[in-house]
Amino acid sequence: MPHYITPSVRLRRTPFSDRVEAAGVTAYTVYNHMLLATVFRSVAEDCAHLKRAVQVWDVACERQVELRGPDAARLLQMATPRDLSRMQDDQCYYVPLVDGQGFLMNDPVAVRLAEDRFWVSLADTDALLYFKGLAAGFGLDVAVFEPDVSPLAIQGPLADELAARVWGEEVRRLRFFRHMPVEVAGRPMLLARSGWSKQGGFELYLEGSEHGPEIWDRLMEAGRDLDVRAGCPNGIERIESGLLSFGNDITMEHTPFEAGLGRYVHDVPGCLANEALKRLADPQRMIRPLEISGTPLPPVLRPWPLADAEGRPAGTLRSAAFSEEFGCNVAIGMVDRHAWAPGTELSVETPAGARKARVRESFWR
Amino acid sequence: MPHYITPSVRLRRTPFSDRVEAAGVTAYTVYNHMLLATVFRSVAEDCAHLKRAVQVWDVACERQVELRGPDAARLLQMATPRDLSRMQDDQCYYVPLVDGQGFLMNDPVAVRLAEDRFWVSLADTDALLYFKGLAAGFGLDVAVFEPDVSPLAIQGPLADELAARVWGEEVRRLRFFRHMPVEVAGRPMLLARSGWSKQGGFELYLEGSEHGPEIWDRLMEAGRDLDVRAGCPNGIERIESGLLSFGNDITMEHTPFEAGLGRYVHDVPGCLANEALKRLADPQRMIRPLEISGTPLPPVLRPWPLADAEGRPAGTLRSAAFSEEFGCNVAIGMVDRHAWAPGTELSVETPAGARKARVRESFWR
Repeated sequence: MPHYITPSVRLRRTPFSDRVEAAGVTAYTVYNHMLLATVFRSVAEDCAHLKRAVQVWDVACERQVELRGPDAARLLQMATPRDLSRMQDDQCYYVPLVDGQGFLMNDPVAVRLAEDRFWVSLADTDALLYFKGLAAGFGLDVAVFEPDVSPLAIQGPLADELAARVWGEEVRRLRFFRHMPVEVAGRPMLLARSGWSKQGGFELYLEGSEHGPEIWDRLMEAGRDLDVRAGCPNGIERIESGLLSFGNDITMEHTPFEAGLGRYVHDVPGCLANEALKRLADPQRMIRPLEISGTPLPPVLRPWPLADAEGRPAGTLRSAAFSEEFGCNVAIGMVDRHAWAPGTELSVETPAGARKARVRESFWR
Repeated sequence: MPHYITPSVRLRRTPFSDRVEAAGVTAYTVYNHMLLATVFRSVAEDCAHLKRAVQVWDVACERQVELRGPDAARLLQMATPRDLSRMQDDQCYYVPLVDGQGFLMNDPVAVRLAEDRFWVSLADTDALLYFKGLAAGFGLDVAVFEPDVSPLAIQGPLADELAARVWGEEVRRLRFFRHMPVEVAGRPMLLARSGWSKQGGFELYLEGSEHGPEIWDRLMEAGRDLDVRAGCPNGIERIESGLLSFGNDITMEHTPFEAGLGRYVHDVPGCLANEALKRLADPQRMIRPLEISGTPLPPVLRPWPLADAEGRPAGTLRSAAFSEEFGCNVAIGMVDRHAWAPGTELSVETPAGARKARVRESFWR
């Protein structure tokens, strides 16, 4: 039985919330103490539209931590094993954040604005507080704060066309995870080629909440004949695409290796977990795509137990959704080593009974 | 128009969620990445019942940070201006947490278990990460982690009777903000005289999620003739009682003085904000109870602007609810100095039009 969400100041509204509600949002989640839309028409219908047209997503809940000052880069490097030394001023990096013991705390996108200025575009934990703690403890010369910056995503195969209409043809040449300035409300703001889908597109980092409705309306107006719609991160598409959700697929109990993010673990002495991570490099469980046959599954409220053919525990299934495109339930699990080889047949205990689950070689796209 | 909440693993269920849902919860909020019930029958009916009987509240979302090790007390003192030096092993302290600049980060209850072991029972921010950052930066000898501890509150005028039936007459002698061991599932667990209402009662700190249903059922069974019900922190009663909500009434933009918590700011050099707070001791705005006449107000989704008799800005109203008991809208505002004297008549801009708001001397109980 579905439940309502009780509104309050604490569940912060975004610069776009009034527009999102006018567009007919039906369900929300809460992310970084902020509202995040989850459904407009239905998750399946929203998914199909995302794959054929273009959507504007209120992802203001990707709150930013600004690190500013001579020690900004040093502070960021302390918290991530990814080597930041070659990062350019127009670059975005996916940076798993780890504590000193090598356990994940968040998996944000870091945006370099200058040598001494970064935005860290957060997944759903208050990593702001970790940076504040480190800065105080190490006596760093850096300001750590949440600026008034709210990402707005433009996602879908027609995203380039829409963005080009609003900001000019130049945006088509923007490379993946690079950013460029575009004009909003008469001021330069940051547009990145990024976003939490694999349908292509951009994220605008809106500076100044008061400009939210204006840019929302401008995009909707410019895209009318493209069938632009209000959308949101899609629970089906993101699993098909293997985009991990912090708090769902991976948590503070997991390491970057277990999360399948070993390629972002470099040998950088500036990272506080540098030595700890060397001892964790041979994980006993890892993120895997799982295909589950049969009818659509109920929502995953708690991780579901996996078992191998002999009935031994084999990990947990953590996210699942029925994919119309692939004709099966697509899922993400944290699978034990003895069971993680592609092709392994597992069983999963769901509230709708036991189902067969097959470990896949790769995600669906 | 109300919206649904989309369930997911990320919005963690508690050891009691199944019981809460069986009891007919209709709405949730999200608190520390966890579900928190907000309504069973209606907020007004739940309130009236809380004031006449006894309720069991799933407040597992008050997640604990455990600080354990020789530097545990030193670490906690770094983050709070309240002097912890006389705290006893059976004591709970309300401890505003501040960053090095003196701004609030959380307002938890700290529970001292031993000289070198504390639980910090959090309001809605990941203060765990701040403690981790400080511990790393200062090289402290302390473990910082979230234990499997889930508070369950027993609140209402019949709370003593219910607790005495379950754990014996001794619980009646437990003093406010003290704790004692009681038996749950054959093991000693911590029972404190505390809770987020002023109707009296306790909070059990359940250790071991697997024991949740058992203790829930035991309380419900023992209190049947007391009309015990599943309840939750009540949006009316807590405003009447002046219990502040972090994220609603006070945020990371406020100081303890602005929050009206100056009595917890002591001159303790071990607190990182000790000097900064001296410069903030004369605030220009402060928390005030506000009484608003007329019909019930809509929910407060964003802080509502206050103005004085001359139309000058006078702060914001941040929480409000209609009180049957007091026959008015009870509210909490952050009021500017020129307007904060008791008796001052203000106006507040609500989505339902302008209303008169009067600053009160004190909360309603």
